Amino acid sequence: SVKTVLMQLFEESGNTDVEGIDTTNACYGGTAALFNAVNWIESSSWDGRYALVVAGDIAVYATGNARPTGGAGAVAMLVGPNAPLIFERGLRGTHMQHAYDFYKPDMVSEYPVVDGKLSIQCYLSALDRCYTVYRNKIHAQWQKEGTDRRFTLNDFGFMIFHSPYCKLVQKSVARLLLNDFLSDQNPETANSVFSGLEAFRDVKLEDTYFDRDVEKAFMKASAELFNQKTKASLLVSNQNGNMYTPSVYGCLASLLAQYSPEQLAGQRISVFSYGSGFAATLYSIRVTQDATPGSALDKITASLSDLKTRLDSRKCIAPDVFAENMKIRQETHHLANYIPQCSVEDLFEGTWYLVRVDEKHRRTYARRPLMGDGPLEAGVEVVHPGVVHEHIPSPAKKVPRIPATTESEGVTVAISNGEH
Amino acid sequence: SVKTVLMQLFEESGNTDVEGIDTTNACYGGTAALFNAVNWIESSSWDGRYALVVAGDIAVYATGNARPTGGAGAVAMLVGPNAPLIFERGLRGTHMQHAYDFYKPDMVSEYPVVDGKLSIQCYLSALDRCYTVYRNKIHAQWQKEGTDRRFTLNDFGFMIFHSPYCKLVQKSVARLLLNDFLSDQNPETANSVFSGLEAFRDVKLEDTYFDRDVEKAFMKASAELFNQKTKASLLVSNQNGNMYTPSVYGCLASLLAQYSPEQLAGQRISVFSYGSGFAATLYSIRVTQDATPGSALDKITASLSDLKTRLDSRKCIAPDVFAENMKIRQETHHLANYIPQCSVEDLFEGTWYLVRVDEKHRRTYARRPLMGDGPLEAGVEVVHPGVVHEHIPSPAKKVPRIPATTESEGVTVAISNGEH
Repeated sequence: SVKTVLMQLFEESGNTDVEGIDTTNACYGGTAALFNAVNWIESSSWDGRYALVVAGDIAVYATGNARPTGGAGAVAMLVGPNAPLIFERGLRGTHMQHAYDFYKPDMVSEYPVVDGKLSIQCYLSALDRCYTVYRNKIHAQWQKEGTDRRFTLNDFGFMIFHSPYCKLVQKSVARLLLNDFLSDQNPETANSVFSGLEAFRDVKLEDTYFDRDVEKAFMKASAELFNQKTKASLLVSNQNGNMYTPSVYGCLASLLAQYSPEQLAGQRISVFSYGSGFAATLYSIRVTQDATPGSALDKITASLSDLKTRLDSRKCIAPDVFAENMKIRQETHHLANYIPQCSVEDLFEGTWYLVRVDEKHRRTYARRPLMGDGPLEAGVEVVHPGVVHEHIPSPAKKVPRIPATTESEGVTVAISNGEH
Repeated sequence: SVKTVLMQLFEESGNTDVEGIDTTNACYGGTAALFNAVNWIESSSWDGRYALVVAGDIAVYATGNARPTGGAGAVAMLVGPNAPLIFERGLRGTHMQHAYDFYKPDMVSEYPVVDGKLSIQCYLSALDRCYTVYRNKIHAQWQKEGTDRRFTLNDFGFMIFHSPYCKLVQKSVARLLLNDFLSDQNPETANSVFSGLEAFRDVKLEDTYFDRDVEKAFMKASAELFNQKTKASLLVSNQNGNMYTPSVYGCLASLLAQYSPEQLAGQRISVFSYGSGFAATLYSIRVTQDATPGSALDKITASLSDLKTRLDSRKCIAPDVFAENMKIRQETHHLANYIPQCSVEDLFEGTWYLVRVDEKHRRTYARRPLMGDGPLEAGVEVVHPGVVHEHIPSPAKKVPRIPATTESEGVTVAISNGEH
């Protein structure tokens, strides 16, 4: 499993008492793992250690229209006390339902089967349901506190979404505004963005997934909202494609990379995570108020401030080279007794790569050496000492802090449950 | 996913706000899900509802020696407050490590690749490590409370184990006794079961995985321990084979089925869960003290008291019929546009079965009707209303309470985290 492969990184330290295993449900797996980690920290089983959540995936499509929407990436998240990003307690709206919107029934192929129209309907209906549950929960909290007002999108400082493609995210912001509009008793007087939308007063959410008039009107009405609260979060999605499981956490990293600690401090960030099949949650993170130099918030934004530079440092290749690489992958990804033929010369330093698959399908990985790193890194340069590596790494290309390849982006964020 | 398929059972009630998704690591998945559920109940996200953990699996092997060790089953566990089985807080010893002891690299085949010797070594070394960590944690708890004595197997009322085959469980009890022996300063005087074992005073755990002398001596020394604390837990394993993920929970059900509430009350049950690859935890459950008629403990043992009768009510078939069924399965389990050819006449009433796989690999299930059940069951007899069923169920065979088939056993136990 992914978890047990990662356990190799803990071997040298002798730490094998590390709970938690793979969680899988399309793009939702990382969010489930994050919730499990936060719950563990709040439970009696917590012993003061950090939890580590790794969301990694690759999205490959058969040749044709869908291929350019592929992507890949991994996001690692450290969960512990006193973090700059704080889970808001009890505020999660979840919707889970069975559907064949997007799935991988063919075990031999890496390519999914997609029912595009159904998938959009599942995504948008999940968004409606999750937002409704989320609002009900925050209304209940507010009532307990004696606050009697309605929750609206204005209560979110930023809104990020699982992004299979960026247009769907823009439609999602419009969709949430439609939710606000329909649940408001007097939308026209309540909010000026609703002026001119009177014609849609009686539409029903479940009738509007493919209603072009509704979509157009609310896309327009929510354009400014999108620009202010969501657009910046799409940097990695725009540049790196659909990363599947880490997609929404790539959005979080994009946000942290482009705003200053002062701009982020105290903001509530909504996170909508969606996995086909389907499983979805809308929850919220509160950014710490402490934006002083050297604070945890300052450190996390500083560590991500070169995200764009790192994306730009990737090597650009022509579509036919990509197609050729995909063909090799397609022909070889189930082979035993196989040594990958791709060059490792273009990999950034520190990148892990597959060295060989032996006759029993056992996989061996190695890592391009890191230049100028401390003793922390030295112990994990080679997974299996004693295995002869078929690829001899060439002199490495220097990249700041965290390694990345043309296929994967690594970013680290820290999230805590607030009170510990 | 399994989770989203199960969500169909909640459709009628409109309850879609059900967190949690599939967790996978060979036979350890159910334990991980159980831990996640208990952590959720202890977390700020808990809203008073029960958690439901379903561990289900099927173990099929290619023709040959291993085939008879196959099995299948599912165990559903309800987790909530005031349960008769109580998680002991903070008492979990976990060991996770990467190994190719048992895995399924061939996506086309259901059959695993097994390195039998390595698998036994992984299992036994995980048991050693988990028991050591568990003891360290309980010693730390005891020291805080001012108790200064060593933990031994005598502190467990019952001991249950993941059971790929029953002999390995018997060896595991011997192994734990070896652990007690080696960690005791004066084993000969401390415990009479250790008399005659002086010759093994200086063996090292890691040298003894395949030491026949050590095994023989400690199997003999632990025979009575096995009979008293473990043997009864192997009822389902003996009768139903290796159930993989629910294996150790089948052992728990077996225990509850064969002892009276009075015999169980107040006992500490150790649970050793193992998943190849590999992931393992040893934790403990404390049985409630309340064994009065009508108590939760009385109810749970009563609900399982007919377990043997239910196992005996299965239909016995000849090996060549089984081989033929397996051949059909092997040839058809990846097919699209397929209607299963097996008869449903032998299925117990209430059993769910696969009706068809359509041209896009979408699966439809139906259920044999339940006789004499209330409205609770009525709503879930057919998963997809409107789908024409190719199999018309014949008059059903009556079976007590929970349905079972020749291939799968369903049992329900309730576990809580104690303090809620």
